[in-house]
Amino acid sequence: MTRQELIQQIREKQSFLCVGLDTDINKIPQCIIEEAKAHDGEDYIFRALCEFNALIIDATAPYCVAYKPNLAFYEAYGIDGMLAFEATIDYLKEEYPNHFIIADAKRGDIGNTSKMYAKTFFEGYDVDALTVAPYMGEDSVTPFLGYDDKWVILLALTSNKGSQDFQFTADAQSRRLFEKVLKTSQQWGTPDNMMYVVGATQGKLFEDIRRVAPDHFLLVPGVGAQGGSLEEVCRYGMNKDCGLLVNSSRGIIYASSAEDFEQVAAQKAKELQQQMAKELELLSRL
Amino acid sequence: MTRQELIQQIREKQSFLCVGLDTDINKIPQCIIEEAKAHDGEDYIFRALCEFNALIIDATAPYCVAYKPNLAFYEAYGIDGMLAFEATIDYLKEEYPNHFIIADAKRGDIGNTSKMYAKTFFEGYDVDALTVAPYMGEDSVTPFLGYDDKWVILLALTSNKGSQDFQFTADAQSRRLFEKVLKTSQQWGTPDNMMYVVGATQGKLFEDIRRVAPDHFLLVPGVGAQGGSLEEVCRYGMNKDCGLLVNSSRGIIYASSAEDFEQVAAQKAKELQQQMAKELELLSRL
Repeated sequence: MTRQELIQQIREKQSFLCVGLDTDINKIPQCIIEEAKAHDGEDYIFRALCEFNALIIDATAPYCVAYKPNLAFYEAYGIDGMLAFEATIDYLKEEYPNHFIIADAKRGDIGNTSKMYAKTFFEGYDVDALTVAPYMGEDSVTPFLGYDDKWVILLALTSNKGSQDFQFTADAQSRRLFEKVLKTSQQWGTPDNMMYVVGATQGKLFEDIRRVAPDHFLLVPGVGAQGGSLEEVCRYGMNKDCGLLVNSSRGIIYASSAEDFEQVAAQKAKELQQQMAKELELLSRL
Repeated sequence: MTRQELIQQIREKQSFLCVGLDTDINKIPQCIIEEAKAHDGEDYIFRALCEFNALIIDATAPYCVAYKPNLAFYEAYGIDGMLAFEATIDYLKEEYPNHFIIADAKRGDIGNTSKMYAKTFFEGYDVDALTVAPYMGEDSVTPFLGYDDKWVILLALTSNKGSQDFQFTADAQSRRLFEKVLKTSQQWGTPDNMMYVVGATQGKLFEDIRRVAPDHFLLVPGVGAQGGSLEEVCRYGMNKDCGLLVNSSRGIIYASSAEDFEQVAAQKAKELQQQMAKELELLSRL
């Protein structure tokens, strides 16, 4: 998907919500588990993951522009998990071809190895974007940038407590590591094929991010369960094209574990979408 | 495997060689491909990967103490690739239970996600060690440290050109990022459950590494195809327990693509083992 197509989707839906599909078999509603077991007995995991994802996707698709399955959750179930990841991507591409698909895998390795990862995710699974870790530098990132209409989403300033450990390390010119990542990586990619991960918990630091990367889209996890504020993210992080994809995972997909989980997930997604519509309205008045 | 057991293996074998199983279907000898196709037709990939790995392992096992399959190469072939990864681990555990197994995956995510990765690799595949990227800090690493006799191998100073981009960023006290990673992470793990990746191409910088991390084992890629020198690595990087696992991938497994590939791989591994025996001999005289 191109940048213009993504912006168009955001305008049409009045939403920049990304739903995180961190699908954990221990948190899936019991009704899904029981139905999967009734069909497949002990080999119920593939069906349970696929079924839950499809129902969550159907319930939330009107309110979001992107989905972000996190590979860790699928790899944890071995082959069955990876088949469920693949089936979920196929389902999205078939039923919701206008939704942007992010594989949250945080890959990154030496050049010839990153090439293999790029092939896997952009040719094999054919997702729109992949999250990538910056520690190993240019040749670990550029192999992902050679695909038309595909995106690298580079970790810059993450939402977790450990972001304090290295990402704020300031060099002799008082430039912090996350700023150096933003600055340096702009020599590798453009706002048309690169985004950055910036955690919603970082609040006012979005101003500093926008000083270095005014035009790029930011993928923002950490609203909801991790405590980030959507209002603050928009105040400091929005740019003229919106420039944000705000992710919520647990706050939507596990909002209810009862049989009404789809309605509750839809409701939670809708609430976020309505807040986002207001923010987009404010933006359009500028 | 414990640290003492690893040191014991190094002494017995007079080797600290790790063979990297970066198995690429386009580089596998044609004879393996043809045999796999004769058995399985178009679905030959699983068999070809497994067969090549088993033959390389049988040929090199007397000369090495560790194997390091790189996940990127297996993920690239989808489910067949992951089944081949799993089968290779099973083969190693059954036939060569004293070899140390490293899954080179360079994972790392927020706490609850890293927990899923830890479960996958340490409970599911049951490998001895996993490579982990440090960018996201403490809570992205500690979930891997809660397993008895399992190891985190944290990226510190990598072998690739891109290592220059961020890893050398110096803070106000002139401490470079890789040194900060070494220093800070020693509050999370010990020399009994943590190693560091340091590229063989970094030469004299091993002295600086040893100043900060005198006791830890270092996993050293980059000898061979990437141009690092084993002699230099030993001169500046060995400690009293050896403290090195030196990896070679392409230089061994693709040394010949003819039918004699096993013998040539064995020969290349043996040459490295013999150099290593000399280095260990020098060490024992100190």
